[in-house]
Amino acid sequence: MAEARIELIATGDELLNGSIVDTNSPWLMGQLEGLGLPVWRKTMVRDDRGALVETLRMAASRSDVVVVSGGLGPTSDDLTAECAAEAAGVGMRFDEGAFASLEARMRARGLAVSANNRRQAMVPEGAEVIPNRHGTAPMLELRIQQARFFFLPGVPREYFALAAEELLPRLSALARAAPQRRTILLRCYGLPESALDQKLASLPDSFPGLSLAYRTTLPENHAKLTATGPRAEALLAEAVPEARRRLGLDCFGQDDETFSRAVGNTLLDKKATLALAESLTAGRAAALLAETPGASRYLLGGLVVYSERLKRELLGVPADLLAEHGAVSLEVAESMASQARSRLGSDYAVACTGLAGPEGDERHPVGTVMTALASPSGVTSRRHLFMGDRERIREFAAYATLDALRRSLLTS
Amino acid sequence: MAEARIELIATGDELLNGSIVDTNSPWLMGQLEGLGLPVWRKTMVRDDRGALVETLRMAASRSDVVVVSGGLGPTSDDLTAECAAEAAGVGMRFDEGAFASLEARMRARGLAVSANNRRQAMVPEGAEVIPNRHGTAPMLELRIQQARFFFLPGVPREYFALAAEELLPRLSALARAAPQRRTILLRCYGLPESALDQKLASLPDSFPGLSLAYRTTLPENHAKLTATGPRAEALLAEAVPEARRRLGLDCFGQDDETFSRAVGNTLLDKKATLALAESLTAGRAAALLAETPGASRYLLGGLVVYSERLKRELLGVPADLLAEHGAVSLEVAESMASQARSRLGSDYAVACTGLAGPEGDERHPVGTVMTALASPSGVTSRRHLFMGDRERIREFAAYATLDALRRSLLTS
Repeated sequence: MAEARIELIATGDELLNGSIVDTNSPWLMGQLEGLGLPVWRKTMVRDDRGALVETLRMAASRSDVVVVSGGLGPTSDDLTAECAAEAAGVGMRFDEGAFASLEARMRARGLAVSANNRRQAMVPEGAEVIPNRHGTAPMLELRIQQARFFFLPGVPREYFALAAEELLPRLSALARAAPQRRTILLRCYGLPESALDQKLASLPDSFPGLSLAYRTTLPENHAKLTATGPRAEALLAEAVPEARRRLGLDCFGQDDETFSRAVGNTLLDKKATLALAESLTAGRAAALLAETPGASRYLLGGLVVYSERLKRELLGVPADLLAEHGAVSLEVAESMASQARSRLGSDYAVACTGLAGPEGDERHPVGTVMTALASPSGVTSRRHLFMGDRERIREFAAYATLDALRRSLLTS
Repeated sequence: MAEARIELIATGDELLNGSIVDTNSPWLMGQLEGLGLPVWRKTMVRDDRGALVETLRMAASRSDVVVVSGGLGPTSDDLTAECAAEAAGVGMRFDEGAFASLEARMRARGLAVSANNRRQAMVPEGAEVIPNRHGTAPMLELRIQQARFFFLPGVPREYFALAAEELLPRLSALARAAPQRRTILLRCYGLPESALDQKLASLPDSFPGLSLAYRTTLPENHAKLTATGPRAEALLAEAVPEARRRLGLDCFGQDDETFSRAVGNTLLDKKATLALAESLTAGRAAALLAETPGASRYLLGGLVVYSERLKRELLGVPADLLAEHGAVSLEVAESMASQARSRLGSDYAVACTGLAGPEGDERHPVGTVMTALASPSGVTSRRHLFMGDRERIREFAAYATLDALRRSLLTS
């Protein structure tokens, strides 16, 4: 079988006026690429009837599979189902099943079903209606000319879920005919992309057939190792350990192992508990650790001490330490960690204090962050300078706070 | 003059295999939208000669201005200039000026000029060559059929610089001729998109010329009111107050006023301070409030009490209350808020406790969240049931916790 031509269409004014960046499609492209089903083209078009119908017809004439996202919602600018019917030259029908499940969903939340919701149950004749248990708009499959069209909601949560549960399984038959391809993602923190590339660039020389790609989702950098063909699995089994040896502790996890889970796993391995004391991150480090289900096995809790008074009164940082060194100092960060450990009764405690901006103070530039770790064997601290806006500085600070713990536990 | 039809084309395999997310285009779209020059469609296509020529021809036949990025580099998969010549039906010529500046640039960095670099100085006949002082590939302007094409390198640093310095000034003449367009974004929390549409859908009947669009970035829903023409400003000045009247407290802000800032502003207006006590959100609500610069004027701090022991020992929730009602109860939420208010010495305190999943307990389904607000006049609480995965439940819970405060302060 010749390779299927797969194209994507994303609809929505918000994609074309700079309001949002489409991250749905790159994710699906990566999934399809991983299955050996490359996407050859993608179009974004506004919520405009004429442009959308023309785009669907054009895609039908040149591709085998077309995945369309967006425009299935309840509002008047949601035009995709109608345009699909027009492009296919069929009428619309009311789907009782889709409406019943939408009604049940709304009722469970105590919401009234509106006339607009009825619109969401109108589907092109001949379309297969695929239930969506993650939202109100069903997914649709419809043939237009010789092409198979799949219509998904644009809301990322629904898109990801339906693509994973319904779309990819339907396309896997195409994948079986395509060459095998395997990919491993190595997740790193603390290594700029250029340094990552320097460490890994020569890997394909030792492992012919291996290809490398990089992706930055700050504060993380990821390396993607890909192999194709019948030896793909075996090649990665040899190349990945070598890559991890080169990356050392900067690589915290592989594939689905998030940073939050990686930190949690180091605590689980030691059967240890953690408390936090946060100033500039104001709870963000604790919330990051709590992303992982089962975090209550190691996360006891923490103190958000945004005001200087609470640093003294709630956490017990000595007033003279604050007066002498200032709230943004290694001394205060260490005291915060020690106090959190003793007051909350945990095995380990981490703390951070710093300047997220927009302005620095007389002693430090904006982006200065002090992190500290209190453990049964003592207290350590470190000074960082992060660049970027307030959000970025706070995100980097939350990572740095937890990463000090991870590295310490992995080497102790 | 009728509005110019502007479309974007981005080329490159890396855009279609999930390796990178194109953030160049959304930035340019936002810039053009701000000039009143909306982009109506965008195409991404692989480094494939046939597909690229066809895409350029199609764009030439339907648009007035086409901005193409990528494929101007020195390697063999950089095909854009040749394909542009083919689509325009012209030959290629060697541009001495472009080559001289490329040579000077390479020499300044101690690099040898390769045969591949000579390729970068080959341009379509009739193209205007616009020097690029940020990289080796010049920017090109070329007419294909009736459309003006601009070709830019895809490297973000060069793209942003050339777009800002060369492209936008060239397009601003169109902007002056295009009709004025003004947009106001109304940000809501607590209203499903269908309810939002129901409240606003009839607005264009009262204000002819007004157009509506919706966008969901959960837990927020946004309505965008747009007006075009010389009366755009005046029309919005009348329509926006009416829209806000219909939305009431569900609309928390306008344009750049984030949820975090809106909550902070209600505290600033009362010169009041806040403390938090968080269980399932583990610091996320405090961190959300601290997103806004200057949050230290009203955010004192908070307690993350993830373990039941800390709810008792650190926060002072009575053990018999926990035993009788369980940690996920309105009674415990109220006690958490009251205790946080008295222990941290704030004017107001908010608290939340609940089940983020993946599993519920014997009393409550996953997604059950209790929020409470302690104020000088007493304590109130509310039970919620949020759908979705762990991340979504925690995000909704953080919003709900702060929103109770916002609504209360706005009506007291």
